[in-house]
Amino acid sequence: MSDLRIAVLGVGMMGADHVARIGSRIAGARVTVVNDYVTEKAEQLAATIPGCRAIADPLDAIADPDVDAVVLATPGPTHEKQLLACLEYGKPVMCEKPLTTDVATSLEIVKREAELGKRLIQVGFMRRFDLEYAALKALLDDGGLGTPLVMHCTHRNAAVPPYFDSSMIVKDSLVHEVDVTRFLFDEEISSVQLITPSASPGAPEGLQDPQIAIFRTATGKHVDVELFVTTGVAYEVRTEVIGDNGSAMIGLDVGLLRKSAPGRWGGEITPSFKERFWLAYDIEIQRWVNAVRAGEQTGDYTDGPVAWDGYAAAAVCAAGVASLESGLPVEVEMVARDTIPGA
Amino acid sequence: MSDLRIAVLGVGMMGADHVARIGSRIAGARVTVVNDYVTEKAEQLAATIPGCRAIADPLDAIADPDVDAVVLATPGPTHEKQLLACLEYGKPVMCEKPLTTDVATSLEIVKREAELGKRLIQVGFMRRFDLEYAALKALLDDGGLGTPLVMHCTHRNAAVPPYFDSSMIVKDSLVHEVDVTRFLFDEEISSVQLITPSASPGAPEGLQDPQIAIFRTATGKHVDVELFVTTGVAYEVRTEVIGDNGSAMIGLDVGLLRKSAPGRWGGEITPSFKERFWLAYDIEIQRWVNAVRAGEQTGDYTDGPVAWDGYAAAAVCAAGVASLESGLPVEVEMVARDTIPGA
Amino acid sequence: MSDLRIAVLGVGMMGADHVARIGSRIAGARVTVVNDYVTEKAEQLAATIPGCRAIADPLDAIADPDVDAVVLATPGPTHEKQLLACLEYGKPVMCEKPLTTDVATSLEIVKREAELGKRLIQVGFMRRFDLEYAALKALLDDGGLGTPLVMHCTHRNAAVPPYFDSSMIVKDSLVHEVDVTRFLFDEEISSVQLITPSASPGAPEGLQDPQIAIFRTATGKHVDVELFVTTGVAYEVRTEVIGDNGSAMIGLDVGLLRKSAPGRWGGEITPSFKERFWLAYDIEIQRWVNAVRAGEQTGDYTDGPVAWDGYAAAAVCAAGVASLESGLPVEVEMVARDTIPGA
Amino acid sequence: MSDLRIAVLGVGMMGADHVARIGSRIAGARVTVVNDYVTEKAEQLAATIPGCRAIADPLDAIADPDVDAVVLATPGPTHEKQLLACLEYGKPVMCEKPLTTDVATSLEIVKREAELGKRLIQVGFMRRFDLEYAALKALLDDGGLGTPLVMHCTHRNAAVPPYFDSSMIVKDSLVHEVDVTRFLFDEEISSVQLITPSASPGAPEGLQDPQIAIFRTATGKHVDVELFVTTGVAYEVRTEVIGDNGSAMIGLDVGLLRKSAPGRWGGEITPSFKERFWLAYDIEIQRWVNAVRAGEQTGDYTDGPVAWDGYAAAAVCAAGVASLESGLPVEVEMVARDTIPGA
Repeated sequence: MSDLRIAVLGVGMMGADHVARIGSRIAGARVTVVNDYVTEKAEQLAATIPGCRAIADPLDAIADPDVDAVVLATPGPTHEKQLLACLEYGKPVMCEKPLTTDVATSLEIVKREAELGKRLIQVGFMRRFDLEYAALKALLDDGGLGTPLVMHCTHRNAAVPPYFDSSMIVKDSLVHEVDVTRFLFDEEISSVQLITPSASPGAPEGLQDPQIAIFRTATGKHVDVELFVTTGVAYEVRTEVIGDNGSAMIGLDVGLLRKSAPGRWGGEITPSFKERFWLAYDIEIQRWVNAVRAGEQTGDYTDGPVAWDGYAAAAVCAAGVASLESGLPVEVEMVARDTIPGA
Repeated sequence: MSDLRIAVLGVGMMGADHVARIGSRIAGARVTVVNDYVTEKAEQLAATIPGCRAIADPLDAIADPDVDAVVLATPGPTHEKQLLACLEYGKPVMCEKPLTTDVATSLEIVKREAELGKRLIQVGFMRRFDLEYAALKALLDDGGLGTPLVMHCTHRNAAVPPYFDSSMIVKDSLVHEVDVTRFLFDEEISSVQLITPSASPGAPEGLQDPQIAIFRTATGKHVDVELFVTTGVAYEVRTEVIGDNGSAMIGLDVGLLRKSAPGRWGGEITPSFKERFWLAYDIEIQRWVNAVRAGEQTGDYTDGPVAWDGYAAAAVCAAGVASLESGLPVEVEMVARDTIPGA
Repeated sequence: MSDLRIAVLGVGMMGADHVARIGSRIAGARVTVVNDYVTEKAEQLAATIPGCRAIADPLDAIADPDVDAVVLATPGPTHEKQLLACLEYGKPVMCEKPLTTDVATSLEIVKREAELGKRLIQVGFMRRFDLEYAALKALLDDGGLGTPLVMHCTHRNAAVPPYFDSSMIVKDSLVHEVDVTRFLFDEEISSVQLITPSASPGAPEGLQDPQIAIFRTATGKHVDVELFVTTGVAYEVRTEVIGDNGSAMIGLDVGLLRKSAPGRWGGEITPSFKERFWLAYDIEIQRWVNAVRAGEQTGDYTDGPVAWDGYAAAAVCAAGVASLESGLPVEVEMVARDTIPGA
Repeated sequence: MSDLRIAVLGVGMMGADHVARIGSRIAGARVTVVNDYVTEKAEQLAATIPGCRAIADPLDAIADPDVDAVVLATPGPTHEKQLLACLEYGKPVMCEKPLTTDVATSLEIVKREAELGKRLIQVGFMRRFDLEYAALKALLDDGGLGTPLVMHCTHRNAAVPPYFDSSMIVKDSLVHEVDVTRFLFDEEISSVQLITPSASPGAPEGLQDPQIAIFRTATGKHVDVELFVTTGVAYEVRTEVIGDNGSAMIGLDVGLLRKSAPGRWGGEITPSFKERFWLAYDIEIQRWVNAVRAGEQTGDYTDGPVAWDGYAAAAVCAAGVASLESGLPVEVEMVARDTIPGA
C-alpha cells in the first residue's frame, strides 16, 4: 500500500510539529503539501522535505490531486471554510480544536458531514490517546470503579502568552476537560458554572486566573476543574474519578493510581519487558533507520551500542558464568580497545 | 529519500515484533525480506506485508539487492556467520544480543568491522533508548550526582521458560545490567562475583534463582544486581545510582526520582504539554493515518473524536463563557444527536 | 510539679480513648474522675484505673475538688451547660466538637469566657496537631507558596453509622474542613454552597452522598471539599493548597508533597535519625516503662531486644571488622543460644 | 500505681533526649537521678527537673533507693561494669547499643543475667519499634511475602563526626542492620563480607566510605547493605525484603510499599480516623495538659483552637445546612470578633 499523502495547513508551532512527526515517526504517511498564511514560512519548510511543495491558498492545497488527506492546524476562524472544502472534495481531515469558533457553525459542519454519509472529520482532542487517560477510560468501562459519581481535574500551565484573556481559559484550556468529561463518562454536560476567586498576584492585569469550573452531567455527575494558567511552575494536568466502588487518579507522575476496598491503594506493575520497553524499541529502531539512511554521508551506520559493546558484554558474562561455578570473584579478561583502531 | 529496505532474519517473538514495528510505527523504512529457519513461518508472514518476500537462506537474504539493511533476530549461534556476511556486503545490521555466543568470536567481529573502516553493526541493548535510562545518563553526564560511586540494580521476571538454566540468568538477564553499567559509567567492568542464596521454593528444580551479581569497575565503582526470574509478580527493572553529590533511582514507576542536598527528594514536572502529551500526539496521528488508509473499505476515515465532539465542546464552552460573565450556573444548549442521522 | 487531675465526661468511643491515652501515653496527667450518662459504664471504667472514681452527675464531676481540668466528650446538646459550669468553677476544659449545637449558644459561650478574662476552653479540632497539617501550615506561614489562592479537600469515609443523615455530613464531617480552612488561611469563611450530585448507589436511601462544598473566604480564596462518607474503601483525608508560588498536598500517604518552580516536585528527606525515629524512641521507652512496672508479676522487665541480641550484634560486627581488613567473607563465631538456659 | 523512678546515666545527646522524653511524653515514669562523667552537666540538668538529683558515681546512681530502673546512655566501654551493677541490684535497665564493646564481655553479661533467672536488660535497638519496621515484620510473620530470600538495605547519613573511622561504620551504623536482619528473619547471621569501593571524594581522608556489607544467614538468605555516611544529603534508611511471593519496601517516604502477584503494587490506606490521627490526638492532649499546668502563670489554659473557633465553625455549618436545602450559595453570618474583647 502506498503512503498517505498529507497536506498540513498552518505550520505554526502545532502544524510544524505535525510535519516533523509525520516525517520522522509516523509509518505509512508523508507530507506532500504545506500551507501557511505566511507563505515564506511554508516555502522554507517545504524545501527541507523531499517531495513536498508549498501551496499558497489553503483551498487549493485541499483540492490538490497530490493530497489524500489534510491536517488542519490553521487559526480557528478559518476552520469552517476549510472543513467545508474537505467535505466537498471528500478528503479526510484531522482538525485541531476548535472545530469552528462558534456553536452554530459547528453544528452546521456536523450536519454537512452527516449528509455525506461518511465520517471524514476527526477533531484533535489528543488526550483520548494518552496512555493514562486510555487506562482510566478502560478502568471505567470495565466497571472497575462502579458507577462514577464525581471527577476532580486540575489544569495548570506555568505561563500563557500575553494575548491570553479570561475567556480563552474557558475556550482553549477548559475545552480539554470538556472533552475528557464527555469521553470518560459517555454522556453530555448539562450545566456549567464558573467561579472566580481572587486573582493571583502573578497573573497579568485583567486576567481572571485561577478559575474554577463546575460541570453537572446529564445523569447528575459532578465535575470540578481548577484552571490556573500562570502558576510559574509547570504543566500539571491531573484527573481523579471517584465511583461508588473506588477511585483512581492519573497525572500524578506515577501512572494510574487506584484506591479500592478494603483499604488498598496501588497500581499495576509492568507485566513483561514488552510493556516496559516497547517505546525504547521503537526509538532504537527509528534512530537506527535514520542513522543507516544517513550512513553514506557519515560512514557510521549506527546510533547506539556498537560491536565493541557486544564484545565487552560477552567478556563480562563469561567471567560471570565462571564465578557462578566457583562462587569467587573472577577478573574480566578483555583486550584493550585501542589495540583495534576503528573499534 | 526513498524508504530503507530491511531484511528481518528470524521472525520468532522478537523478530516478528520488529516486523510489526517497522510496518506500523517506524517512518522511512519497510520490510522487504523476511527469513526464518522455519520457512513456512517466514512465508506466511511475508504474505501479509505488501512488497515483502520470504527468502529461505539467511545469507541469500543478506545478499539480496532488494535489501539495504538487516535486522538480526536469529538464534545467537548463527550470528557470527550472518554478521560476517553483512560486513562482506557492506550492509548495516541491527543485531539482537548477543553479538556472538563467545568472547573470541565477538572479538573477531569487532576486528573485522574495524578493518572495514565503517561502523555497520549496532547491538540491540535497547535500554539505552529508554527514556528513564536516558534521563539517568544525562543526569550523570551533567555531573548532577557528582562522582558516581555505587549502583544497585534489580532485575526481576515473573517467570521464565522451562529451558532457562542458571547460566542463562547471567548471559540473558544480567547481560543487560552489564551494558547498563558500561553505558552509564563509560568504563569497563573489571571483576564479577556471583552470590547464590538459598533458592526460591518457587523456582524450578535445579535453577539457582535468585542470584546476586557484584561488579567492580575499572575505577573501583561498586555495582550489585539482584537477579530473580521466577518471582511470580511482574517485570521489575530498577536502577539506583549513588554519587558523592546525591542519588537517583529509575524504574520505581515514578520516573526518575532524585535525592539531593540539603535533604530534598523529588523529580521534574513536565514543563509543557508537548513533553506531557507528545506520545499521545504520535498515537493520535498514527491511528488516524491507519484509519484513513482503511477508509475506502470502512467508510469511516476517523479513529478518534468526531465532528459531533467538536460541536459539543463548542456548546459547553459557550455556556462556560456566559457563566464566567454572570457567575451563575448556565444550562448548556445542544440539539439532540439523534436528530442528525449519521452524526 | 504534681500531675494534672482530669475528669473525663462521656466515656463512649471518643472519651474512653482519651482515658486510655491519658493513662498510658500522656506525661504529667492522670484521670481522677470519669462520668457517663450510662453510670455503670463509668463505674466499670473507673474500677480499672488506680485513684479514679466515677461521679454520676457531670456538674458534680466538674465541681469536684479532685479535678483540675475537664475533658468533655459528652453528646453535643449537653455541652452548653457543662461548659458554663467549667467557666463558673474556673476549670480548663478540652471540649470535643461541637462547641455547642447552635450558633447563638456558641456565641454566648465565647462571650462568657471573654468576660472571665482567661482562656479556659479549647476545642477538639485535632487536625491542627497532625504533623502533615502542621507542616502545611508552616509552609504557608513561611510564604513558601506565595499567596494561597485555592484549596481542594477530600473527606472520605468507608462507611457511617445508620443514623448519619445528610446534614450531619455538613455538621460532623465538613466541620473539620471548616476549621482547616480557617486555621490554614487565618481568615473567616464568608459564603458556602453545597452541591448535590446524583447519590451513590451504595449510599443508604435518603442520604445525599457525595456532597460538594464550596467556600469563599473573606479575601476571595476558593475552597472546595468533596464529602463522600460511604465509599466502602477507607478513610481518605487529603488537602491541597495552590498559591501563586507553587502548590503542596498532604494526605496522599507520602507526607507533604510540593510542586514549585521551575518544574520541580518533591518533598523533604528526614535530616537525621532523630526526625526519622523519634516516635520509635517514644514507643520503645513507653513499652519498656510498662514492662518494668509489670515486671514484678511477669519476671520479665523487657519488651524489646534482650541481652542475647546485644551479644549477637557484637559477634557479627566483630566478623564484619575482620572482613573489612581482609576483604574476604568471614564466618561469624557465636555460642549456641541453648547452651545458656534463660538467655 | 506509682510512677517508675528512673536514673539516666550519661546525659549527652542521647541521654539528654531520654530525659526530655520521659519528662514530657512518657506516662507512668519520671527521672529521679541523672549522672554524667561531666558532673556539672548532670547537675545543671537535674536542677531543671522537679524531684531530680545528680549523682556523681554511676554505680551509686544505680544503687540509689530512689531508683527503680536505669537508662544507660554512657559510652560503650563503661557498659560492662554498669550492667553488672544493675544485675547485682536487680534493677531493670534499658541499655543503649552496644551491649558491651566486645564479644566476650557481651557473652558474659548474657550468662550472668541468665543465671539470675529474670530478664532485666533491654538493648536499645529502637528500629524494632518503628511503625514501618513493625509493619514489615508483621507482613513477614503473616507469610505475606512467602519465604523471604533476599534483603537490600541502605543506610545513609549526611555526615558523621570527625572521629568516625572505617570500623565505626561497621560497629555503629551496620550494627542496626545486623539487628534488623535478625529481627525480621528470626535467625542468626552466619557470614559477613565487607566490600570497599573507591572512596567518595567527599569523605574525609582515610575514611573508607561507602562500604557494602554482604550477610549470609543460617538458612542461606542473602542481605546486602549499602553504608554511606557522608552523602551530604540526609538520613536515608531503606529496607526491601524479597520473598518467593512478593516484595515489600520501607523507608521510601511512602510507608510500606508492596509488590505482589499478579502485577500489583501498592499499600494500605488508613482504615479510619483513629489510625490516621491518633498521633495528632496524643499531641493535642499532651500540649493541652502542658498549657493547663502552666495556665496559672500565663492566664491561658489552651494551646489550640479556642471557643471562638468553635463558634465560627458553628456559624459556617449553619450556612452550609441552609445551602444544602436551597442549593444556592449562602452568606455566613457572624459577629465581628473584635466586638468581644478577649475572644
